[in-house]
Amino acid sequence: MTNYPKKVYLNGEIINAADAKISVFDRGFLFGDGIYEVMVQFNGNFFFGAAHMTRLESCLKKVNIEFDISTLQEKIDQLLKNTALDSKDCMLYIQVTRGVAPRKHSFPKDVAPTLMMYAIPFTLPEINTKLLSVVSQTDFRWHRCDIKMTSLLGNIMANGFAIENGHNEAIFHRNGLMTEGSHSNLFFIKDGVVYTHPADEHILNGITREIVLKICRDNDITYVEKAISFENIHTMDEAFLTGTSTQIASIKKMDDHIYYDGDQPGAITHKLQELFSQLKRNYTPDVSY
Amino acid sequence: MTNYPKKVYLNGEIINAADAKISVFDRGFLFGDGIYEVMVQFNGNFFFGAAHMTRLESCLKKVNIEFDISTLQEKIDQLLKNTALDSKDCMLYIQVTRGVAPRKHSFPKDVAPTLMMYAIPFTLPEINTKLLSVVSQTDFRWHRCDIKMTSLLGNIMANGFAIENGHNEAIFHRNGLMTEGSHSNLFFIKDGVVYTHPADEHILNGITREIVLKICRDNDITYVEKAISFENIHTMDEAFLTGTSTQIASIKKMDDHIYYDGDQPGAITHKLQELFSQLKRNYTPDVSY
Repeated sequence: MTNYPKKVYLNGEIINAADAKISVFDRGFLFGDGIYEVMVQFNGNFFFGAAHMTRLESCLKKVNIEFDISTLQEKIDQLLKNTALDSKDCMLYIQVTRGVAPRKHSFPKDVAPTLMMYAIPFTLPEINTKLLSVVSQTDFRWHRCDIKMTSLLGNIMANGFAIENGHNEAIFHRNGLMTEGSHSNLFFIKDGVVYTHPADEHILNGITREIVLKICRDNDITYVEKAISFENIHTMDEAFLTGTSTQIASIKKMDDHIYYDGDQPGAITHKLQELFSQLKRNYTPDVSY
Repeated sequence: MTNYPKKVYLNGEIINAADAKISVFDRGFLFGDGIYEVMVQFNGNFFFGAAHMTRLESCLKKVNIEFDISTLQEKIDQLLKNTALDSKDCMLYIQVTRGVAPRKHSFPKDVAPTLMMYAIPFTLPEINTKLLSVVSQTDFRWHRCDIKMTSLLGNIMANGFAIENGHNEAIFHRNGLMTEGSHSNLFFIKDGVVYTHPADEHILNGITREIVLKICRDNDITYVEKAISFENIHTMDEAFLTGTSTQIASIKKMDDHIYYDGDQPGAITHKLQELFSQLKRNYTPDVSY
């Protein structure tokens, strides 16, 4: 999402992006006190939209933001219709904050949450053919990475540093174990087995991460939800990142270690990319993981 | 700060608080990508104002937000004059974010930072006579607590939980060691010696924390910058919190441990409160720590 959308949904109104403004006393601005989701629509459906909605609801609960998610679909439909993106390929961003109140750390009473959404035209490539360079650093973020919140300074500092040094993404290790990327999940492959960090409080359980595990189950590819240690990075056969817009992206270089020469991702990464692409082609909202 | 101010300074304009709005694409709103300061004016001067300005500048540097701090004083003067608070007792809030850009984790180029400030009438009590109840929890925040940032969801979750359970503040322990409060520093006293966590990346080095250490130095009170372990909470003689508006506040109860009956804080806490009050009465901008 590197361009502004044309329109923004803000608390019941759909307005030009340039006019979409919130109070400086919105706790999203003062405290990073909000939850967000990003999802992608293609072939007229949001890809695993129900899973994104469930995660949004679950994260809001975790931080005690009272928000009625039951009316959200209707508002999304309104926004898409109003921006001529209904049934079109697009990416949707949703942010819910605790609302507007005089600045005080504790939770304000009787405050209506702020809902901000926008969609931009966006088409997923069939396969993400990027060959990534990633750089690791100690995971200095908080210990509730399972919450998809907007207090993201740690994530953007890590990502900003990686990008400015010519890499595609920052990946983290905590207590010697590889956790995830700044806005992606991290997978390794060794001797035909797929490894990724378990979905605990040290990673955000990505929808695409879950889809990859489902693909493994459905195709007899062995996987283990177990963190790989930082010191074993160079002993792995393959590595890749996953994310809603990233899909499955092969990692060619991690710190000083090069996984392969040339431009061909490892065999299992490539196979998973093909299977993911196939799943997309056949996707209907009935599919779940 | 439980009321809205009348006016807000926002990017060069002073406007009614209700009209003070920022773009939903401000990175302060999307990412918690900002730094803040709070300081208090009395007797016509900001108390250790220079120290607050130095910390603001240092934190902005730590997160790569390019902001010219040299013109800030002039803007503060403007705001105070416009709100009839020049030379009046008040509390000033300053927030600088990375600015407005299409949503993308990495640092945007050529973006002007957002500056938002407001002041409200506020008079520090001579001594904070509150007798606090605090509740501890594992420090689940990030590992750069030395940065006074607006990505504060961890802090407000802890504080919100504490307040909703009838306490005044949440305090944290990390790896078995007491760190600080959700928006305060934590001190203990044992056998006449004052203890507080060293000013490393696991606490925000409060200006009031530094003032208390200066008071100790100036008055031959021994202090050690060393973390007290969680399991030794109940073996301490006294405990208190510090903060810009908190000043020095005695802790009466920490988890299940009661430091004293009645309403008289421990002797050294009380002495430090008296010395702090004296320092305020005699404060001029020449005083530093």
